[in-house]
Amino acid sequence: MQKKRHSIKAIAKELNISVTTVSFVLNGKAEENRISQKLIDKVQAYVKEIGYQPSQLAKSLRTGKSNIIVFMVEDISNPFFATIAKMIEDKAYEEGYKIIYVSTNDDAEKTKGLIRMFKDLQVDGYILTPPLGLESEFVEEMSGDRNPLVLFDRYLPEVNCSHVVIDNFQGSKQGLDLFQAQGNKNIGFITIDSDQSQMHDRLEAYHQMCQQNDMEPKVLAIPYKSYSSQETEQAMKAFIEDSPEMDAVFFATNYLAMRGMQLIKQLGIKVPANMAVIAFDDNEFFKFSTPSVTSIVQPKEEIANQLIQTMLSLINTPVEKREPLKIVLHAELKERESTQIKVKG
Amino acid sequence: MQKKRHSIKAIAKELNISVTTVSFVLNGKAEENRISQKLIDKVQAYVKEIGYQPSQLAKSLRTGKSNIIVFMVEDISNPFFATIAKMIEDKAYEEGYKIIYVSTNDDAEKTKGLIRMFKDLQVDGYILTPPLGLESEFVEEMSGDRNPLVLFDRYLPEVNCSHVVIDNFQGSKQGLDLFQAQGNKNIGFITIDSDQSQMHDRLEAYHQMCQQNDMEPKVLAIPYKSYSSQETEQAMKAFIEDSPEMDAVFFATNYLAMRGMQLIKQLGIKVPANMAVIAFDDNEFFKFSTPSVTSIVQPKEEIANQLIQTMLSLINTPVEKREPLKIVLHAELKERESTQIKVKG
Repeated sequence: MQKKRHSIKAIAKELNISVTTVSFVLNGKAEENRISQKLIDKVQAYVKEIGYQPSQLAKSLRTGKSNIIVFMVEDISNPFFATIAKMIEDKAYEEGYKIIYVSTNDDAEKTKGLIRMFKDLQVDGYILTPPLGLESEFVEEMSGDRNPLVLFDRYLPEVNCSHVVIDNFQGSKQGLDLFQAQGNKNIGFITIDSDQSQMHDRLEAYHQMCQQNDMEPKVLAIPYKSYSSQETEQAMKAFIEDSPEMDAVFFATNYLAMRGMQLIKQLGIKVPANMAVIAFDDNEFFKFSTPSVTSIVQPKEEIANQLIQTMLSLINTPVEKREPLKIVLHAELKERESTQIKVKG
Repeated sequence: MQKKRHSIKAIAKELNISVTTVSFVLNGKAEENRISQKLIDKVQAYVKEIGYQPSQLAKSLRTGKSNIIVFMVEDISNPFFATIAKMIEDKAYEEGYKIIYVSTNDDAEKTKGLIRMFKDLQVDGYILTPPLGLESEFVEEMSGDRNPLVLFDRYLPEVNCSHVVIDNFQGSKQGLDLFQAQGNKNIGFITIDSDQSQMHDRLEAYHQMCQQNDMEPKVLAIPYKSYSSQETEQAMKAFIEDSPEMDAVFFATNYLAMRGMQLIKQLGIKVPANMAVIAFDDNEFFKFSTPSVTSIVQPKEEIANQLIQTMLSLINTPVEKREPLKIVLHAELKERESTQIKVKG
């Protein structure tokens, strides 16, 4: 389907000039190498005539630059990642970069295999949600590479690597503060069983609240990878039924809150009258459902902006002059019907 | 970060054997080339010892095979595409293939640029939602290439190329039949202004219904690319307010239905009492919203299955023996609250 590929060698032969001259012209280095304007015009006219397209692969092998940035996220079907993927792509495209996405499945081995593949393809940079179990040494070494690595959504506290994350502690705290301001006394916390930074910090805010208010922590940590959605629901059901005094639940992820709201409806518990609900991470469903769901909104547009700006700034800085760029953004509490209760005595 | 890369040449020198011998062993071609088992063991032991990883790029340049399939969709942030992307990835991974995603933005020029890039990267196959304006000749030529092309979601009727699509006409007809069975007399149709096969066939079902029932078609075709979401809402508002007798609306896309349901709520129109609603393409919101929304459900799992099976079957068939594989799947009507009205006289 492509035009027949002509080699630089064939062009040189046809025009009876050297391969080097053709190469200089094609790479925009003719002037600095004192090639005459007449010769430049001749090469360009011929190349246009035969419809020569330099091979991107040959070009990137030569220049070490592919203008490709890879965006490696846990799961591209998660609306949070999918939306940011799209936003990044639009911004990168304006800057002349193409974005390729892959899902890591939060699997360290798969991630390393993908990175090896992308290294061979000579991509220019990596945006990565580091999977569980990815070794610090691996990230450390990669972040010193010529092609920059920017961590996203979560980071490794022990590694000095560029990242764009949100303040998960502060985000969760806002929600928990609202529960308290509304007089909720028995607040449960449903999360996934993960010590990745983003999950750790959300739970940390809950533990701090419990400690400061002398509350007994009520945490359900679901081993979500080994659980089917049915098992997840059963675990939530048991958790809610075992604590009839619970008057509020904080869901630490989007996905858990969707399941949870459905379950609470099935159990006949009225939201917010009998139970207030907050979800970490917003989505369309929370906006339009009845009742609508209060959530901690991550600033997606700003995250996407910062990811691209950080990446381009690193790419455009010589590797020996680079300093890791660490961007921490704030999440916002969006109050909706699921927390609109009268303040209790 | 990677282990130091050792070349085949260096290995050959170190073991004092020929480069060809090393290459045969590494490519599993030692036996057919009568290399002794002793020598095979020696090479393998040494390669293991030094942690040699053959370069994927070098390998794919040599073999013309990268074990990469690209999945090029209109917009990866659309939940329909994002979900299928994930399903495909899981299936492909089991078969030893990696999936790379990109968004085409339904832009023919961008799509062609991406395909050129992927050709250079020597990917093994292309799954593509062909964008508006992609020339038949381009698709025609590409579908004769060594690396297969499978169209998805939509196809070009004039081109003999493999595809996996659903029967959009039959899917829409099921919804329109339900409206009629429930006694709706004034059915509106809201779609986007596109003549791509999937949109064409949905509208066609509506026009057929109008013709057979002597109804005046009421179609709003939104030029969605040039419209902001505010303009889209205004156009819908005018369309609905101009036809107070309208008692049912069929939304031809997911996205339009989400906006539409919100708008109908704002206008104080009761669903389904005053207006029945059906959406083409299901999502979580339709399932959980109040009222829940009747929709035409595309069989995502089956689509993903067929895409991978079709792709692998083409990859594994010599190009001269290939016949285009054309898979058409059926969508299902999922009845929910937005159409549960009593049958009128």
